[in-house]
Amino acid sequence: MYGRYTQELGVYAKEEAARLRESGQRRSVSDRSRTLDLLEYDKGRCAKCRICTVRCQKFLISRVGEDWIFLILLGLLMALVSWVVDFCIAICLQAQKWMYGGLDSNVFLQYLAWVTYPVVLITFSAGFTQILAPQAVGSGIPEMKTILRGVVLKEYLTFKTFVAKVIGLTCALGSGMPLGKEGPFVHIASLCAALLSKFMSLFGGIYENESRNIEMLAAACAVGVGCCFAAPIGGVLFSIEVTSTFFAVRNYWRGFFAATFSAFIFRVLAVWNRDEETITALFKTRFRLDFPFDLQELPAFAVIGIASGFGGALFVYLNRLIVQFIRKQKAINRFLMKKRLLYPALVTLLVSTLTFPPGFGQFMAGKLTQKESLVTLLDNRTWAKQGIAEEFDYIGHSQAWKHPQVNVFVTLVLFIVMKFWMSALATTIPVPCGAFMPVFVIGAAFGRLVGESMAAWFPDGINTDGTIYPIVPGGYAVVGAAALSGAVTHTVSTAVIVFELTGQISHILPVMIAVILANAVAQSLQPSLYDSIIRIKKLPYLPELGWGHHEYYNIRVEDIMVRDVRYITLNCCYRDLHNVLLTGHLKTLALVESAESMILLGSIERAQLQSLLSQQLGRPRRLEYIRERALAEKKRMSVVSNPGSEDGSQRVSQEVRFQVRGHCTFVPPLVSSSSVMFISHPQLSPPLCVLQIAEWEEMQLDEQVNFNNCKIDPAPFQLVERTSLHKTHTIFSLLGLDHAYVTSIGRLIGVVSLKELRKAIEGSVTVKGVKVRPPLASFRDSGTSSSENEATELHKLWDRHKSMSLPREHTPSESDEKSQ
Amino acid sequence: MYGRYTQELGVYAKEEAARLRESGQRRSVSDRSRTLDLLEYDKGRCAKCRICTVRCQKFLISRVGEDWIFLILLGLLMALVSWVVDFCIAICLQAQKWMYGGLDSNVFLQYLAWVTYPVVLITFSAGFTQILAPQAVGSGIPEMKTILRGVVLKEYLTFKTFVAKVIGLTCALGSGMPLGKEGPFVHIASLCAALLSKFMSLFGGIYENESRNIEMLAAACAVGVGCCFAAPIGGVLFSIEVTSTFFAVRNYWRGFFAATFSAFIFRVLAVWNRDEETITALFKTRFRLDFPFDLQELPAFAVIGIASGFGGALFVYLNRLIVQFIRKQKAINRFLMKKRLLYPALVTLLVSTLTFPPGFGQFMAGKLTQKESLVTLLDNRTWAKQGIAEEFDYIGHSQAWKHPQVNVFVTLVLFIVMKFWMSALATTIPVPCGAFMPVFVIGAAFGRLVGESMAAWFPDGINTDGTIYPIVPGGYAVVGAAALSGAVTHTVSTAVIVFELTGQISHILPVMIAVILANAVAQSLQPSLYDSIIRIKKLPYLPELGWGHHEYYNIRVEDIMVRDVRYITLNCCYRDLHNVLLTGHLKTLALVESAESMILLGSIERAQLQSLLSQQLGRPRRLEYIRERALAEKKRMSVVSNPGSEDGSQRVSQEVRFQVRGHCTFVPPLVSSSSVMFISHPQLSPPLCVLQIAEWEEMQLDEQVNFNNCKIDPAPFQLVERTSLHKTHTIFSLLGLDHAYVTSIGRLIGVVSLKELRKAIEGSVTVKGVKVRPPLASFRDSGTSSSENEATELHKLWDRHKSMSLPREHTPSESDEKSQ
Repeated sequence: MYGRYTQELGVYAKEEAARLRESGQRRSVSDRSRTLDLLEYDKGRCAKCRICTVRCQKFLISRVGEDWIFLILLGLLMALVSWVVDFCIAICLQAQKWMYGGLDSNVFLQYLAWVTYPVVLITFSAGFTQILAPQAVGSGIPEMKTILRGVVLKEYLTFKTFVAKVIGLTCALGSGMPLGKEGPFVHIASLCAALLSKFMSLFGGIYENESRNIEMLAAACAVGVGCCFAAPIGGVLFSIEVTSTFFAVRNYWRGFFAATFSAFIFRVLAVWNRDEETITALFKTRFRLDFPFDLQELPAFAVIGIASGFGGALFVYLNRLIVQFIRKQKAINRFLMKKRLLYPALVTLLVSTLTFPPGFGQFMAGKLTQKESLVTLLDNRTWAKQGIAEEFDYIGHSQAWKHPQVNVFVTLVLFIVMKFWMSALATTIPVPCGAFMPVFVIGAAFGRLVGESMAAWFPDGINTDGTIYPIVPGGYAVVGAAALSGAVTHTVSTAVIVFELTGQISHILPVMIAVILANAVAQSLQPSLYDSIIRIKKLPYLPELGWGHHEYYNIRVEDIMVRDVRYITLNCCYRDLHNVLLTGHLKTLALVESAESMILLGSIERAQLQSLLSQQLGRPRRLEYIRERALAEKKRMSVVSNPGSEDGSQRVSQEVRFQVRGHCTFVPPLVSSSSVMFISHPQLSPPLCVLQIAEWEEMQLDEQVNFNNCKIDPAPFQLVERTSLHKTHTIFSLLGLDHAYVTSIGRLIGVVSLKELRKAIEGSVTVKGVKVRPPLASFRDSGTSSSENEATELHKLWDRHKSMSLPREHTPSESDEKSQ
Repeated sequence: MYGRYTQELGVYAKEEAARLRESGQRRSVSDRSRTLDLLEYDKGRCAKCRICTVRCQKFLISRVGEDWIFLILLGLLMALVSWVVDFCIAICLQAQKWMYGGLDSNVFLQYLAWVTYPVVLITFSAGFTQILAPQAVGSGIPEMKTILRGVVLKEYLTFKTFVAKVIGLTCALGSGMPLGKEGPFVHIASLCAALLSKFMSLFGGIYENESRNIEMLAAACAVGVGCCFAAPIGGVLFSIEVTSTFFAVRNYWRGFFAATFSAFIFRVLAVWNRDEETITALFKTRFRLDFPFDLQELPAFAVIGIASGFGGALFVYLNRLIVQFIRKQKAINRFLMKKRLLYPALVTLLVSTLTFPPGFGQFMAGKLTQKESLVTLLDNRTWAKQGIAEEFDYIGHSQAWKHPQVNVFVTLVLFIVMKFWMSALATTIPVPCGAFMPVFVIGAAFGRLVGESMAAWFPDGINTDGTIYPIVPGGYAVVGAAALSGAVTHTVSTAVIVFELTGQISHILPVMIAVILANAVAQSLQPSLYDSIIRIKKLPYLPELGWGHHEYYNIRVEDIMVRDVRYITLNCCYRDLHNVLLTGHLKTLALVESAESMILLGSIERAQLQSLLSQQLGRPRRLEYIRERALAEKKRMSVVSNPGSEDGSQRVSQEVRFQVRGHCTFVPPLVSSSSVMFISHPQLSPPLCVLQIAEWEEMQLDEQVNFNNCKIDPAPFQLVERTSLHKTHTIFSLLGLDHAYVTSIGRLIGVVSLKELRKAIEGSVTVKGVKVRPPLASFRDSGTSSSENEATELHKLWDRHKSMSLPREHTPSESDEKSQ
């Protein structure tokens, strides 16, 4: 059981390869130890040194297998990658500013520089990833979620993808477009872990273990978020919420360990680079500690939460709408697909034109980068008082929010509205990019807007107990940022990320309230951004059970299972195998004792059956048969010995070896094509005609299947017909199953796959095609009827046991026969 | 599958009862709606009002089923409980202080008051819980962990226990002993959830669902910690780490929602009570934000972490040692057991004598309560400078740390050492109490000690870049508190709790580093405090897989499984059933097709079999047989009709009904006892002698078992012999199993229970009795051998299928026969 429920067909081949490699390594290790022994006998000058070195090497190699070494290396690597990427992005952004600043004599030149720079960078990024590894496009979190479910996505964890993702991401973010780095960093960290794991497996065998790799990937996701925001705790929690459905607390420390180390190194690098004096938060705030907020401000925070919930759902919807619109419009699509780089270029052009500071950008703080906007939005001071923009000293970047003609409120509203659709649009560009950071900034701006309004409304604060505590709009910005990003990603841990980013936890209750409200609203309206992308990309997924849908406890497996199971019996012949393989497309097939008893013995992978069939009917046996026939023919005809026959048999044996080596795909034995092949064979003796071959084929097909060399999973996952949908969902997501057989006292009666489950869960809202149990199904008197049923079933089995001759079973086998 | 893997035997009966109650409710609901219809026809004065009321009521009742209502109610309730408990504790402590302060004329009277008060309170607490509900004793977290594993502990979630826990806890903490409230609060919250669930089930049927209840209990644990520390995030994480092995991310929001609401209400109550001006942290710190710590201070933090790790392990060890010592010393034990209240009283006397402020307590800040100590330890100011206690203005409670004769360092060291063993001792008292808070305070003191030492060593701070940033010993105290409590509980989330408690997150990196190091050290030395208690209390548990033990990937189920499985066959007779029941003590038995085929059909609970046997051999059938015999006898003898016979048959039928109603336990049919019974029966006719009854019994035992009315779990959990120990552990902890059958192509070949798994995991460190695979087992060439094996097995099955007559299987069945 759980022998092989991954969807990958070549796992077995890989395992075999790994085993071979392992045994090779063992040999090399023993070689090395032999070298050591030899060295000890060697009385040369630096023999001692060399012995010492070899010993150290041995010790190190034995230590390399430890988890914590791996995690430290991963953390170190990711911190370096994160820091280098950040550094490059900062340089890119500075270069744009420098160009823009240097050309301040001519507005047109300025515009050209402002627009061309991002267009070039984005186009390069899109082209580069397209050419090197198209898998690097997008966030990466949806893919990681799918991979952690146990599905193997090809090419998602290769070195090529790593290079494409890192360089593509740097260029994309360097362009100044509203894109984020947290999603790609989850992917990059997973890539790092996978590559590191591969590299480390050169030293020890343990890195080959599949479940260990999954554990390490889960830790890597935490590292990705952790080193991106220098937020170890938030990173771990965010990665858990975003990628897992069930989390092993056992793996908890791995994530914390690696993420903390990574965040530590990431911040230490900043100190060493003289950017900062000591390790502090990334976006440090300086709100007052003694009275962070008044109780009476809580309704305002709740409003932020609810509005953010709607906003988050709208963002996800808008994002999906844009993707679907681009896909549907065939004319546009053909045009854009031909020139894959045109779409990114056009979008970038549009966005950067609108943010051009002397143009429309002046009304929306267009000249600020994402980071600068966030710093100003989280600022401690109040921008507006009594409705009029206060004439305080706008230091540094805060100036950008001040416009001589328009109010700071107008600037904020424009910023929010424009950035909202720009971010939704920009994240559809086929470059490596995330949506967390843009959404975070928009949320902060929204919070700031509410905060400034509150400050304008209550210039002396709300508290009536003597002391004046003015309202802190920066605190509102923090709340807004957490709420909106939480709503878009459907996570609560953005609250923790916010605390770690700002270095202040004083607003914990408002933040938690807003985040929970935002989540409640967003989750009831739309799937999370990542789930939305999973659906758009048609990755295999299992929808979450919604909040408090009680009907999941009442729907049972028997209501959703497919009763018409494709199975093979222990005494079936190759013809049955052939028919089953031709009709269905399931990856595994049930093996039952006989069509009468239907006792489930195990499941066999399709590939195994295909190879069985191809062994029986494939080229080698065919050639052998022909050779035998030819030999018999020859003997019978007593012709002179032909020197070419030996050569021919050699070739045949070569072909046999070739056939056995690769995982050959089964070619349905069509008489016409095979006979054509054989007729063209030079070695064929004339009497072997097409009919004979067809006859031979028929004969072969009627033979009983020999399962001796076939890998059988002897205990595939089994459910009972009365298991509730809720429990089934839990088990499927716990164990990462993609199908389970439904049995009744050992007898196969149905199968449930991810598809049925998905239909049932989504169908319980909008029923289509699936028989969904009425909501009151739990009230039916199931106790007596089903126990009766069980008893009858058992009785049948018993009867069979006594008489050993039973009439054919009704539903499943008959319908199966028909379908075959 | 998973139909019933809980250990409770009476679940079925309960379900039936619930179903009956549900149908009753439905009836009452329909009654209510009929009332409504009637009301609408009624044209009375306030008919409209009444209609409106009834409608509102209906709406409310329909809403009550929603999760969030339940969670809000739970949060509200727990916040109130927490606040009331805190309030009462504060009053108790104040009373002690008042008494102590009022008697300052006479030291002896002072001592009497100081000592008597806690002794009385603790003795009352111990006695009260002992009488009302002994289950309320102790922390409650170990029990909750066991319950969340799926084990049903009796009486742990009743109203009695709730009352005992709340009152006992209040008295215990009010005594001023070094005890904590977080463990009991987890239990109290779970109790609340269970009781609330029961209460709510009066309105809707959904509260009956078992898996939903488990989800709600998990949320309740989060609420417990959350409202205890006003730390929603830390509470959720702590409860996850402490109680779960696998956590459903789906349940995440429940915990956050309820814990946030609870923490919010808890703090709002403080504001309304005018204790605080607004919602802030419980132990607010005021460290400087701009430069919280220097990079060069990190080694000191690491030292705190490592030392805390050793300290935590020592604490757990000490705690266990004390319990075991008390248990082993039979003389002491007998004495203490007789007077159950003597042990608590003695311990309290000892502890309170040592902390008596004018006595030894003056050297260890004895007059401070736990809360006051913590506040002073987290203080912003430095107590010592250049080795000499600085003469700054010790305001408020900080005075207690200052002693005219001795250094502040000596005070701190004494405090740490004394409190350490006192806490370890005090937590063994049989009252409701936790160990988190005392450990937290000790950790804070240790951190403060290191911090003060650092401040004395570097009076001008460490940083060399011009500005002087003096060292903040309070920051060290925060780090120490998190590290020591993390080490004792084996959790990382104490870091988050610390941030939420202090309201400052600036020390995030030092805290994380120290906590992780402390965990690493402590986890490699000792189990967590809760696991230690689980072992002491002998609750069913599954040990965690340690850090990076790679051998778990190499040990396989076939190495640890019990091959001698007790099973029953489909065609067995009652005698076999009887033998199986007499020899083994397993809770479920495997049902196989036949001893030859060994095809696993399902599992049957012991209780089911017992009721089968008792139906076959029990009193009713016996009486019936006797009655029949008597009637036949009567007819044969043609005596006059006896009026008492009718009466007798009535009594018999009554007895039958009684027998069927209750889950009668099976009495082994011993001829002697039963015959004695029958001989004493007044209705017996003389010729029915003992021998005849024995004969009848033998006859009955030779009948084939009729499984028709027996509840069979048709798909018990199955593993394959090659499943790795790691995977088995994962599956067991994921699904909360207590045993799983090992099958090979449908044939039962062994069974693995929690016991074997536990032995294997613990045995991989110290092998005893279990055949543990050598560490290099993965290198054996398992690929070919096992596939051969599989093939042979299959072949046998096939042969059997063909010939239908197979020689008896070798190992499992033979050994089973012998054992039976």
